[in-house]
Amino acid sequence: MRRADGRGLRELREISFERGVNRYAEGSALVRWGDTHVLCTASLEEKVPPFMRGDGAGWITAEYAMLPRATAQRSPRDAAKGRVNGRASEIQRLIGRSLRAAVELSQLGERTVTIDCDVLQADGGTRTASISAGFIALFDALRFMRETEKITEIPLKKQIAAVSVGKVGGRIMLDLCYEEDAAAEVDANLVMTGAGDFIELQGTGEGGSFSRAELAEIIAAGWNGIAEIQRMQRDVLELSEGERELFDRCV
Amino acid sequence: MRRADGRGLRELREISFERGVNRYAEGSALVRWGDTHVLCTASLEEKVPPFMRGDGAGWITAEYAMLPRATAQRSPRDAAKGRVNGRASEIQRLIGRSLRAAVELSQLGERTVTIDCDVLQADGGTRTASISAGFIALFDALRFMRETEKITEIPLKKQIAAVSVGKVGGRIMLDLCYEEDAAAEVDANLVMTGAGDFIELQGTGEGGSFSRAELAEIIAAGWNGIAEIQRMQRDVLELSEGERELFDRCV
Amino acid sequence: MRRADGRGLRELREISFERGVNRYAEGSALVRWGDTHVLCTASLEEKVPPFMRGDGAGWITAEYAMLPRATAQRSPRDAAKGRVNGRASEIQRLIGRSLRAAVELSQLGERTVTIDCDVLQADGGTRTASISAGFIALFDALRFMRETEKITEIPLKKQIAAVSVGKVGGRIMLDLCYEEDAAAEVDANLVMTGAGDFIELQGTGEGGSFSRAELAEIIAAGWNGIAEIQRMQRDVLELSEGERELFDRCV
Amino acid sequence: MRRADGRGLRELREISFERGVNRYAEGSALVRWGDTHVLCTASLEEKVPPFMRGDGAGWITAEYAMLPRATAQRSPRDAAKGRVNGRASEIQRLIGRSLRAAVELSQLGERTVTIDCDVLQADGGTRTASISAGFIALFDALRFMRETEKITEIPLKKQIAAVSVGKVGGRIMLDLCYEEDAAAEVDANLVMTGAGDFIELQGTGEGGSFSRAELAEIIAAGWNGIAEIQRMQRDVLELSEGERELFDRCV
Amino acid sequence: MRRADGRGLRELREISFERGVNRYAEGSALVRWGDTHVLCTASLEEKVPPFMRGDGAGWITAEYAMLPRATAQRSPRDAAKGRVNGRASEIQRLIGRSLRAAVELSQLGERTVTIDCDVLQADGGTRTASISAGFIALFDALRFMRETEKITEIPLKKQIAAVSVGKVGGRIMLDLCYEEDAAAEVDANLVMTGAGDFIELQGTGEGGSFSRAELAEIIAAGWNGIAEIQRMQRDVLELSEGERELFDRCV
Amino acid sequence: MRRADGRGLRELREISFERGVNRYAEGSALVRWGDTHVLCTASLEEKVPPFMRGDGAGWITAEYAMLPRATAQRSPRDAAKGRVNGRASEIQRLIGRSLRAAVELSQLGERTVTIDCDVLQADGGTRTASISAGFIALFDALRFMRETEKITEIPLKKQIAAVSVGKVGGRIMLDLCYEEDAAAEVDANLVMTGAGDFIELQGTGEGGSFSRAELAEIIAAGWNGIAEIQRMQRDVLELSEGERELFDRCV
Repeated sequence: MRRADGRGLRELREISFERGVNRYAEGSALVRWGDTHVLCTASLEEKVPPFMRGDGAGWITAEYAMLPRATAQRSPRDAAKGRVNGRASEIQRLIGRSLRAAVELSQLGERTVTIDCDVLQADGGTRTASISAGFIALFDALRFMRETEKITEIPLKKQIAAVSVGKVGGRIMLDLCYEEDAAAEVDANLVMTGAGDFIELQGTGEGGSFSRAELAEIIAAGWNGIAEIQRMQRDVLELSEGERELFDRCV
Repeated sequence: MRRADGRGLRELREISFERGVNRYAEGSALVRWGDTHVLCTASLEEKVPPFMRGDGAGWITAEYAMLPRATAQRSPRDAAKGRVNGRASEIQRLIGRSLRAAVELSQLGERTVTIDCDVLQADGGTRTASISAGFIALFDALRFMRETEKITEIPLKKQIAAVSVGKVGGRIMLDLCYEEDAAAEVDANLVMTGAGDFIELQGTGEGGSFSRAELAEIIAAGWNGIAEIQRMQRDVLELSEGERELFDRCV
Repeated sequence: MRRADGRGLRELREISFERGVNRYAEGSALVRWGDTHVLCTASLEEKVPPFMRGDGAGWITAEYAMLPRATAQRSPRDAAKGRVNGRASEIQRLIGRSLRAAVELSQLGERTVTIDCDVLQADGGTRTASISAGFIALFDALRFMRETEKITEIPLKKQIAAVSVGKVGGRIMLDLCYEEDAAAEVDANLVMTGAGDFIELQGTGEGGSFSRAELAEIIAAGWNGIAEIQRMQRDVLELSEGERELFDRCV
Repeated sequence: MRRADGRGLRELREISFERGVNRYAEGSALVRWGDTHVLCTASLEEKVPPFMRGDGAGWITAEYAMLPRATAQRSPRDAAKGRVNGRASEIQRLIGRSLRAAVELSQLGERTVTIDCDVLQADGGTRTASISAGFIALFDALRFMRETEKITEIPLKKQIAAVSVGKVGGRIMLDLCYEEDAAAEVDANLVMTGAGDFIELQGTGEGGSFSRAELAEIIAAGWNGIAEIQRMQRDVLELSEGERELFDRCV
Repeated sequence: MRRADGRGLRELREISFERGVNRYAEGSALVRWGDTHVLCTASLEEKVPPFMRGDGAGWITAEYAMLPRATAQRSPRDAAKGRVNGRASEIQRLIGRSLRAAVELSQLGERTVTIDCDVLQADGGTRTASISAGFIALFDALRFMRETEKITEIPLKKQIAAVSVGKVGGRIMLDLCYEEDAAAEVDANLVMTGAGDFIELQGTGEGGSFSRAELAEIIAAGWNGIAEIQRMQRDVLELSEGERELFDRCV
Repeated sequence: MRRADGRGLRELREISFERGVNRYAEGSALVRWGDTHVLCTASLEEKVPPFMRGDGAGWITAEYAMLPRATAQRSPRDAAKGRVNGRASEIQRLIGRSLRAAVELSQLGERTVTIDCDVLQADGGTRTASISAGFIALFDALRFMRETEKITEIPLKKQIAAVSVGKVGGRIMLDLCYEEDAAAEVDANLVMTGAGDFIELQGTGEGGSFSRAELAEIIAAGWNGIAEIQRMQRDVLELSEGERELFDRCV
C-alpha cells in the first residue's frame, strides 16, 4: 500500500540539510523535509540563566516560531496578539530538553547556546525537523567553541534525531505530512539516540486510544526512520575522523 | 526496598477524592493525592469556540494554574508577570486533550465544558491528579446535563485516569512525589482508559535516556496504578446501576 | 424582621477559620464565611521592595484573586485576559494597607510577608473575609519568625478584623451575602482594631446617597460584628498567656 | 495655628475652574487647585457597554491618568510598563461611581459619557479635584445633549463635589497638599451631595488608626469645604434660572 | 488664493510658546499652534540607558502621546489597549532624533533628558509642534544644568525647529491643519537648523507621488516657516547676550 | 575611490530576487541583497479592516520582523519581550504605505493583501530590500487574483522600488551595508516610481545635518540605483507582453 504522495508506510519524505546558512550564527542549518522548511541557528552567549549562575555549567535552550504564512492560512504574529502561543511554547520546551540531552552541560562553561527554530514553511513534522536540524546547528556551535578554544573537547553525550509516527486510517505510518497528521487517530513523536534509546516519547490519541501492541509498532517504525536521519546528520556534518569516533562512542 | 516515605516501588500515595466542593459549578472535585491538593471545577457554557460553530458538536477544554504558595517557594502570579507560563500552558493542553477523549463530543450539543484545575498545594504529580479528578468533575457535569435534559444519555466514551512513573536512582517507581521527581532520571506520565489503552504517553529522559525495556517496565507499573485509581473514581462517583453498565461498556 | 437566609439584621453568617492548611506557608488560614471560602497564605521572604532597601524595616503586602468558578458565572483568568483586574487590584491594596496597620514594620527586619488571598468560592464579603483570615495567617507567620529567632518578640500593634455593612431595602444590615450586596443602596466595609478604632472605612452609595445618621447606624452595626470576629480570631489562634497579654495591650 | 503655606486648618487652597478648554469634547474643565492641575473632558458616545445593551439606560465612566512629569520625580508611562497602574485603576473607579450618582442614568438613552481626568501637575488631592471638575465637564455634556435634542431635560439627580481631609501632626486639616498628605496619619476623601449626604466616604489610617470622634471632626471639616466648592461649581457653570431651580431641587 | 481659515499658502498658523508651565520639570513649554496644543516637559535623570554606560556621554530621548480626547473622536488609551501605538512610537523616535542633534551629547555627562510631549488638543502638525516646543523645554533644562553647575557651558550644537508642508488640491501649502492634512496628496515634515540645513526630511505621497520639482517647492516653503519659528523660539527663550552669541555660532 | 567591499560609490550590491518560494502564499519573493536576505510573502484575505468595510475598496498592509539571529548579536523575540518593537513598527508602516501606492485600491474589491517581510539575515538596507521584493510578491498576488477571476485586470498604478543612500566619511554612497550605515553621517531612504517620482523620501542626519546641495546629490544617486532595481524587478517577473505595456503605462 502506498500513501497519497506515493511513499511507502515506513518511508521518510525527501530530506536535505544545508549547513552554514547564516553568516553570524555560531552554527546553523536549513532543513527541507518534504515541504516543511525550518531554519535553525545556534547562538552562543557568555552567560547562563540566573538560576544556574556560579555552577560552572552551561545551558542549552530553544525557541520555536512559525512565520505567519508558513501555513495554508496566514496566522497573526504572536507579538500582534500580545500573548504567547501555547503550542509554540510546548514545542520549544521539547526541543530544548531534547538537545540538552546531547551535551554534557557541565563541560560547556557558563555559556548558553540558544537554538532558534523558525519554520519558513510547514507541512507537518516541524518539531521533529527542528530537533534533527537543531542538532546539526548545535554541533557546529560546539565545533566553533573548540576552534575558538573556549573548550578543549566537544562534550557530546548523544547523537539526537527525531521523527513522527502516526496511525492513519488504521495503519501505522512513518513521518506524517500535514494532511496525514490532520487525519491521524494517533500521533507520536520520538526523539532517540544513536543507540536507539529514547530521549523523549510522546504518543497522543487524537479522539481515540492506542493499544500496547500499536505502541510497539510505532516504536519500531520510528527507530528505523531515526537511524536513517542520523546517517544523514553524520554525512552533512562531514565528520573528521576524531569526530566520527566521538559519535561512535557516544551513541 | 522502600522509598523515603515508606512506600513500595509500585505503591500509590494515599488518595482521596471529594465531590461537590463548589456550590456553583456543574461538577467539582477536590483531590488530595498525598500532599498534592487540586481543586477541579467543571463549568458548562452554552457556546463553543468560533472554529466549531455550526457543527452541532460540543467542546471540552481545561485550564491549569497553581496558587502562588502551592510550592515551597512562593511564585509570582502570571497576571503580575504579564505573560503566560509555558509549563502551565503545556499541562492544560494535556488535560484538555485527555478529557476530550472521555466524551463523544458530537453528542454534547454546542456546549463547552471548561475544567479548571487549580493546584492549592503541590508535591509532584499535579497534572495526573488534575486529569484523574477532572474526570470526576466532568462526569458530574455530564450528569447535570442529563438531569436538566440538555442531553438524554451520558455520552461517555472512555473512563480516563492518569499517573506518573519515573526512574529514580536506577529504579522504576510509581507515582513520584516532588522530591523523587526532582531526582528522576526518567519521568513519564501515562493517561489510560479502563481497558488499559493509552490516551497519552509522555516519557522524558531528564539529562539521560531510557531503553525500550525500561519503557515496558514503566508501562506495566503505570497501568497497575491507573487501574487502582479508576476503581476509586467509580467508588467516589457512586455510580447507579445504569452508569455502572455504561462504564463497563466504554472502558 | 428576618433576612432571606433567616438571619437577623445584625447577625453574622456562620464563620469558621481553619489554621495551618498549607504545609509550605509560614502561616495560613482557610475561612468559610457562609458560602464565601477564602484560602489565605502568609509567605515570608528575606527581602523588601526596592524603595525600602536599607531602612531596616519590613513590609507586608497582599494579593487577591478569585478562582474562575468562584462565582455563579465562570470568569476568564486574568492571565488569559492579559490585563489586571481593576477590582482585584483595589481589593488587594485595601488588604495590604489593613494588615500593615497590624504590625510595627520597623521591628520586622528587611523582610516581606505576602498575604495571598485566593477566593475559592464567593458569596459576598470576600474582602472582609480576606482581611479577617489574613490576620490569622499573618500572626502565625510572625510566630514562625519568633520561633526561628528572626525576631525576639512579636511586633503586633493592633488586632485587625473587618466586616461589611449595607443598606438594603432601606434597612441597615450586617455582613451582606452576594444577593443582598447586589441589591444594596449603600455598601460599606469597615476595618477596625480591638479598641473599636478605624483602620479603614469605606462607604459607597450605589446610585444613591447616605446621610450622617445612617453612617452612625452602619458604624454601630459594624463594630458589633467586628468585636465578635475578633473573639473568633483569638480562639482559633489558641493564644498562649503571653500572647493574650500582647493582644490585650495592643487593641 | 497656620499651615506650611499659611492656610488655616479648615481652609481650601485657591481653586479655579475653567470651562470649555477643549474644542472637541462635549464638555470640559481645567481645574487649578493650588498646584494640582487636572484637565477633564466629557466625551459622548452613542453606545453602552455590552452588559447594558437593550436596557435603554445610559452609562457614565471615568479614566484617570497622570502625565509622566506631573510629579516631582518623572514616572514611566503605563503603556511603557505594559501593565495597569493599580492606584490609577482604583481612582478612576471612584470617579466613575461618584459621577454616576449625579445623573439619572435611565433618562440618558443608550449613551456613554466618558470623563477623562488627566493630571497635568499633581500636588495632592488629584482624585477630589477630578471629581469636582469632572462634575462640571459632565454637566456641560448634559447641556450639549439637551441642546442637540438627544434628551429633553437634564436628568440631574445630585450636585457632586469632593474634598480630602486628613490628620497631620495630630490635627484635622482640610484639603491636603502633597507634603501634608505624605505626612498624614489619617487620609480621608469625601464625596458629597448638595444636601450634605455622602456619595462616598473613604477614610484610611496610614500606619495608625482613627477614632469615631476624629471621624466626626473629619466629616464636619469636609462638608464645609464641599459646600464652598459647590458654590464655585454653580458660579462657573453660569446656571440659567431653570438650571438653578434644578440644582436647588436635586441637592 | 486663500485657505479655508483665510491663511495664505505660505503662512503659518498663530503660534504661541509659554515657558515654565510645570513646577517640577527642569524645562517645560506649552505650545498653542492654531488649535494644536502640546505640553512639553524636559526631565533630567542622573543615568543613561544600559548601552551607553561608562561612555561619559549623555542621552536625550522623547516620548509622545495624545490625551484620549485630543481628537474629534475619543481614542482609547494605550494602556487600555495593552499595546503600543505604532504611530506614536514612530513620532517619538523622530522627536528624539531631532532633539539629540541639537546638543553635543559628549558634554552632558552620564545624564538623560527625557522630553515628554503630551498632545492636549490636536489639529494637525503635532509632531512638528512637539519638536519646536521640545527644543525650548530642552534648552531650559540645559540652563538648569548650567545653573546647578552640572555643566559649565551649554553644549548647544544646533537650533532646531520643525514644520509641515503639504500638497493639497495641487498646491503646496505651509503648516497644514488637520482638515488639510487629511486631504493632502503629499505630506512632508521638515526639521531644520538655524542655517537652513536638514536634520530630518520626510516626504510621503499619500496615494500618489511627487516630483523633484515639487520637492524643491516644498523645501523652500518649509524653510521660510522654520526661520520664522526659530525667531519665535529665540524671543520666548529671552536669550542673554552670551546665549545669543551661542545661538549665532551654532546655527 | 572604492568602498570596503570594493564597490564604487554609486554601485549597488549584488542583488537576486527569487519568486515562488512559498507554496501557500498567493505571491512570494526571497531577495538576497548582498548579505541582507528577506523573505516576502503576499497573503490574500477576503476582508478589509473595520474602518473600510462597505467601501468596496481593498487594502494592502505590511508586517516586518527580524529573526532573532538575523544580526551579529542575537536579539530576543518581540513576543518574549511582550512589547512591540518601535523600529519594526515604523518600518512596516513605511512598507505598507509604499506598496499601497502601487495599486489602485478601489479596483481590488473588499480584500486585503498582507505583505510579510521577514528578515532572515540583515546587513543594512532591510527596509528598502523589503519594499523592492515586496513589490514582486504583491504583483504575483495580483496575478493570482486575475487568474482566479477575482479581478479582470491588474490594477497597477506604479512600479515601486526603494534604495538607501548615505553620507559616509563625507561622501555620498549608494546602498549602504550595515558597517557603512553605522558610520553614516546622513542616512536616506528613497522609494520611487518608474518615472523617477517620489513615493517616499526620508533623510536623517545622524548627529549632524545635511545641506540642500547634499540632498540633491543623494537623490541623483538614489534614482540611478532605483532604475536598475526596477529593471531587475521586470526581469524576474517575466512580464507578458500585456504586462509590459501595463508597466510602461503606469510608471
